[in-house]
Amino acid sequence: MIFLAPLAPRTPLTMISRLSILGTGLLGTSVGLALRATGFKGAITGWNRSPEQAQIAVKMGAIDSIASDPLEAARASQVTLLAVPIYATLDLMEKLAGVLGPEQLVTDVGSTKRLISETAARLYNTPDRASFLPGHPMAGKERGGASLADANLFRGAVWLFTSKGTGFSPYEKSQENPGASAPEGASAVGTELMREWRSLVAAMGARVLDLDPIRHDELVAWVSHLPQFTATALSALLEEEVGDAPELKDVGGRALREMTRLGASPFSMWRDIAHTNTEALERALLALEQRLAYLRENLRTPALRDEFEHANQFRKE
Amino acid sequence: MIFLAPLAPRTPLTMISRLSILGTGLLGTSVGLALRATGFKGAITGWNRSPEQAQIAVKMGAIDSIASDPLEAARASQVTLLAVPIYATLDLMEKLAGVLGPEQLVTDVGSTKRLISETAARLYNTPDRASFLPGHPMAGKERGGASLADANLFRGAVWLFTSKGTGFSPYEKSQENPGASAPEGASAVGTELMREWRSLVAAMGARVLDLDPIRHDELVAWVSHLPQFTATALSALLEEEVGDAPELKDVGGRALREMTRLGASPFSMWRDIAHTNTEALERALLALEQRLAYLRENLRTPALRDEFEHANQFRKE
Repeated sequence: MIFLAPLAPRTPLTMISRLSILGTGLLGTSVGLALRATGFKGAITGWNRSPEQAQIAVKMGAIDSIASDPLEAARASQVTLLAVPIYATLDLMEKLAGVLGPEQLVTDVGSTKRLISETAARLYNTPDRASFLPGHPMAGKERGGASLADANLFRGAVWLFTSKGTGFSPYEKSQENPGASAPEGASAVGTELMREWRSLVAAMGARVLDLDPIRHDELVAWVSHLPQFTATALSALLEEEVGDAPELKDVGGRALREMTRLGASPFSMWRDIAHTNTEALERALLALEQRLAYLRENLRTPALRDEFEHANQFRKE
Repeated sequence: MIFLAPLAPRTPLTMISRLSILGTGLLGTSVGLALRATGFKGAITGWNRSPEQAQIAVKMGAIDSIASDPLEAARASQVTLLAVPIYATLDLMEKLAGVLGPEQLVTDVGSTKRLISETAARLYNTPDRASFLPGHPMAGKERGGASLADANLFRGAVWLFTSKGTGFSPYEKSQENPGASAPEGASAVGTELMREWRSLVAAMGARVLDLDPIRHDELVAWVSHLPQFTATALSALLEEEVGDAPELKDVGGRALREMTRLGASPFSMWRDIAHTNTEALERALLALEQRLAYLRENLRTPALRDEFEHANQFRKE
């Protein structure tokens, strides 16, 4: 991990003065820390299903106070960040839609976006309702929890937004086009809060990109979910093959450690991803199975050279 | 990479005063640097097929002089280290067997050991012939070349020896049993030189382990070759899927970079490994294909939890 020297704080001009973070695990707590690092001066209230995590977030300075009820916290906030697993996010979206109004924005950090974007289109983003901006920071660690939170977690990472709606569309660089993902029909205040939240995300050091939600889920199946499930399969297989002789794991060295590090990732997070992006992940896994079979059948043919050259090419660009 | 504070040099008492390193790429040059870091005072001559690599090794202080002919260099040495790809190692073994005598030791760093150990048993290790100690340091980088050499490359790594001969046998911790892998029948001087080379390897910071050569090749198929070929397949696949949009690679972040870093490894090195450990690697690749298919078929069943738990277990021990 690289700890960059802190930049001079550059808080965007913002009307956001009351923020709540629902879910103070690794991501939620890191957002609180990163906001403070930008110089953000507003009140930050946190809630977590397990209160210990919220207490850690307070101690770390990521949140100012702990809410006992997530709906009450959101009602008292201009912006609410949902930083819980995907099904919990969907559940809170349903509940919050009934208690929030057009002066309020909800956003999230969920790893799949089709269901969340569909729910947002159904329950939010009309002139008389609260607004919802679906987001997904491409940052994390192989283990979760508030105590691993880091103000620099999002520095240099991509933060995706997917409010465009339906069907395939190419991504757009939204820093050049800051209103790109404001959904049509959202209230004026909601649209402005979205713009401000995007500016805060950029101030945390992230690169903001807009993607269509279906395209998002297909893309992350390749570049995020497939690498995770590959590490899981490889680690589970090696546990069976050499798990009884710990010395033998040391034989593999750095390359083995790197290729299995993600094997430590918790099921609780990945279950929701597997359930809400099943088809895209199935396609990606099948493609890798076929690619491995092709390698296996060509260990002694010239096609092996081509595969190494394709792989070298991926690492070059 | 972690640069450890240098330890106080602790050169083992050794009668080795003339060493040659044939192949001054990443591994050969790193051995020269690591030997110097232990305080080894003997002469080190180097040879490389491409002279530029040998010149870099001289400039870095890994070797004292460049030999123009590998056989001449070995004839003038007590110990010759072969640090070239596997087929080049086998070729040099054939040639050196004809010109070296019972006062001389040859050892190597090749990544597969069955063929090399068989060749050693056929051409070396009788009282009137030179000795051969098959070795394999589990250390490397995803790119080769003398300029990436590192005196600390072997620190904390396992360095395997496989002179035991035939059939399956469990590994032994040879630091407790330093003569463990001296093959029966080797000359007295050869046996002593083996003992001393093993001490030098330990002084470079490596953990010495003895394995049967067939067991070695099976084990490294799982813990070294399978991770490499998985990274190659994943990188080649992703090059095809997202290679035309470099921005999308950034979306994957650290996890993607880590799971594809080995995709940069050169074909030239892995070809010989694929050709000399084909059957074990085929078994390992097939097992991973099946494991991925099992995951794919269970994305929505409770079996997914078990797979994550197996994987978590592998990372715990």
